[in-house]
Formats: sequence, C-alpha cells, structure tokens
Amino acid sequence: MEEANNNNNNNNNNNNNNNVVLLNFWPSSYGMRVKIALAEKGIEYEAKEEENLWGDKSPLLLEMNPVYKTVPVLIHNGKSICESLVIVQYIDDTWHGSSPLLPSDPYERSQARFWADYICKKLYNIAYKVWKVKGEEQEAFKKEFMECLKTLEGELGDEHYFGGDTFGYVDVVLVSLSPWFYTIETFANFCIETESPKIVLWVKRCMERESVSKSLPDPQQIYGFALEYKQKFGIE
Amino acid sequence: MEEANNNNNNNNNNNNNNNVVLLNFWPSSYGMRVKIALAEKGIEYEAKEEENLWGDKSPLLLEMNPVYKTVPVLIHNGKSICESLVIVQYIDDTWHGSSPLLPSDPYERSQARFWADYICKKLYNIAYKVWKVKGEEQEAFKKEFMECLKTLEGELGDEHYFGGDTFGYVDVVLVSLSPWFYTIETFANFCIETESPKIVLWVKRCMERESVSKSLPDPQQIYGFALEYKQKFGIE
Repeated sequence: MEEANNNNNNNNNNNNNNNVVLLNFWPSSYGMRVKIALAEKGIEYEAKEEENLWGDKSPLLLEMNPVYKTVPVLIHNGKSICESLVIVQYIDDTWHGSSPLLPSDPYERSQARFWADYICKKLYNIAYKVWKVKGEEQEAFKKEFMECLKTLEGELGDEHYFGGDTFGYVDVVLVSLSPWFYTIETFANFCIETESPKIVLWVKRCMERESVSKSLPDPQQIYGFALEYKQKFGIE
Repeated sequence: MEEANNNNNNNNNNNNNNNVVLLNFWPSSYGMRVKIALAEKGIEYEAKEEENLWGDKSPLLLEMNPVYKTVPVLIHNGKSICESLVIVQYIDDTWHGSSPLLPSDPYERSQARFWADYICKKLYNIAYKVWKVKGEEQEAFKKEFMECLKTLEGELGDEHYFGGDTFGYVDVVLVSLSPWFYTIETFANFCIETESPKIVLWVKRCMERESVSKSLPDPQQIYGFALEYKQKFGIE
C-alpha cells in the first residue's frame, strides 16, 4: 500500500492508488471516528452523505455494506470496509507511516483495543439510549453512563491522552462521542463536567487538534437533530 | 517480545520471558478461542480453571479482570489481557513468527476483523440464547441463527478455511462455537448439518488440526453442562 499522497482529486485517473470515499451520516459518532482518523493521516477523500438513516438508503450503501446496511463505510479503490473500529484500524494499517494510532508494542496495542471495545460495548450503547427514555429507566442509564465515564477517567489518569503523550486509537474512539454530550446532559438533566471533570478537560485538549475540531459537528446541531428525531418517532 | 520457546516450566525463574497463564472455564467458547490460538503458536501455558461462573469468582480473576470479571484472561509475564478477540490478536502480535492468524495485507486484515466481529455480535449472541428459551422466542432465534450461518457459509464459499488456504483468525473465532452445536440443535430441535452442510464440513476440516481437536471439549459434555445450567436456574 502506498503512503498518502494527498492527490486523489483526479477521479478520472483509473490508476489512482488512493481513491477514498466515505459514506457517512453527519450525526454518527461512528462516522466521526473515521473522519478524525483520515484527518490524522492527512488523507483526502470524497464524503458522500446519506440523506437520512430511517428512510430509503442509497443504492451505494446497500451495495457496499450488504450485511449491516449502515454508515460509515470506507471505499478505498473500490473496495469497501465497514464497521468503524475495523475502518480506523484499516486506516492505521494502510497509511502506517504517519501519525500511528495504535501503539507498536503488542501489550499496549491490546490495551488500546480493550478500551476501544469497552467504549463501544458499554458507553456508546448507553449513550444512544439515555436521551431517548425517561423516568426510572433514564436514571438507571444515567448512573451507568457516569460509572463508565468514571472508569475511563481512571484509565486516563494524569496522562495527556489515552495514548499517553500521543493522540491515539482510544482517543479517536471516545472523543467522537463528545458532540453528543450536550444532548445527553440536556435531556437527562445532569452535568458531565461536574461528574467527570478530567474527561471534559481531555475533550478540550483533543479539540485543540485540527483533525478533531474539523471532524466534529457543533453540539447544538446534534441537539437539533435529536429533537427532530424525537419528534419524528413520537418520543416525548 | 521473544518468540515462544516452549520452555516456561520453571516458574521459579524470575527472568522467564514466557510465563503464560490462562484463566478459563471449560465450556466457554471464548476461552476455547484462546486455547486454539496458543496451540497454533505452540505456546505452553498453565491453565487455571474457575470452579464455576455463577458462584464466587477467584480472587485472581477479580484482580486480573476488574472491569468485566469474566474469563478468559491471559496473563503473560504478570500482565493481564482480557476479552477473547483482544487476546487472540495479542497472541498473534506477540508470537508473530509462526502460524500467523491475521493476514498481513491491510484489506484482508480488515475483512478478517469484520467477520470475527460479526460472529461475536450476531451469532454468539443468539447462540447463547437459543437453547435457553422456548416457543415463539426460540423459533425467532433459531431463524436468526440459521440466517447468520448461511451468511457465513456464503463468506466461506468454496475455500478450505475462512482464511483461504490458511487456517486463521475467523476460523479460530467461529470453530470455538462448534462444541455447542449439538446442545443448540437438541434443545431447539433442528439440524445444523441439513441447513448449513458447508459449515459442518468446514468444522470437520478444522477438527483435523490438533490445535483445534485438543482445545475443544466433547459436545456431549457441553450438553451435560447445559442441562445442569438449566436445572440450576430453573429453566425448563
């Protein structure tokens, strides 16, 4: 595989070795992960937005991700890669020369994979439920959400990033949830900064990187999307 | 990291570079994955069995996997690695010289990761439910289980293994469920071989490898365990 050459604008060139397309839907934190990883590597790409995720899906999405039919999908020289963690690792494997996201030491790699998996299985899972429900159910999810963030705060410790001095895989995976924090706090009526101040400081640190700030949407836009979603599905 | 030296019998040697311990519970397909990966690499290890998974957990397990408190856990020179997919990749990263499990090509690696993740998220999830329930619920799970196997059969195609000519990561992850097939078939009253003959042929091919046949328990023993489990939890 070739290093990024930041020169894939000529779509008519059949020999182009870095034709990169991202199928995405802008509020998706999973898609944000891929955008950050591509930005870290300096890879130019064509972004194709799905119109919405509850209506008709684009024929290209159905063709490129027949198993799950979900975004994000990365299409690299015509071949599709699905599932955000798989895509981020693919990006790191393919353009390994610059800004490595996963550590090279096998044990450190395993720990990065463990925490990335934890964030997906536990935190994301709860995050997408907590703002949609109410009452006791919401209280239970809120408690679990805060416990997860506290566990992650413990893992971060006094480090600059989850990757230590270097922004890495776990940072990419977690910071992509941060545009949803405002929506979660507002609907569930609590303050993440009060509960997990170190996590919020870490988000601010990540946002100083252009790869992150340019890849994440405004939290207010996410809130607007969440309101629209609730209205559409009759959730009070 | 050093290559496996098959010589970690001297536990009193503090400089031992390959002190490998596996915390496991024998009916766990997740644990079987780790056993196969270690056998493929020819790594000797000390196996420590949890007495059961519903009573008190061993202090060592609680110390080594404080987040999930589940088996399998690999302890390599005192450091713990948790979650079976993370462990198998760690084993492949650490002892990379012999019997590579993941392909070296980034795209092929991504596809192996995608299918391993699919097997975990979809097939395993259903497999652990289908034998515990009855009636309509069971019929729904059974249908979903067979659909997953058919998707995997399509992915296998006419290849020898999921890794093509080479036994690899996806093979390790999927074949570890096969000792549960008899239990699933018996409780849910269907025949996997009739529905997915290619998968059953592939299991038989995998079983010709000593790394697999020596790592998997007898399906009858699994069935006995499942009966005991149902009795213990009052599931008819």
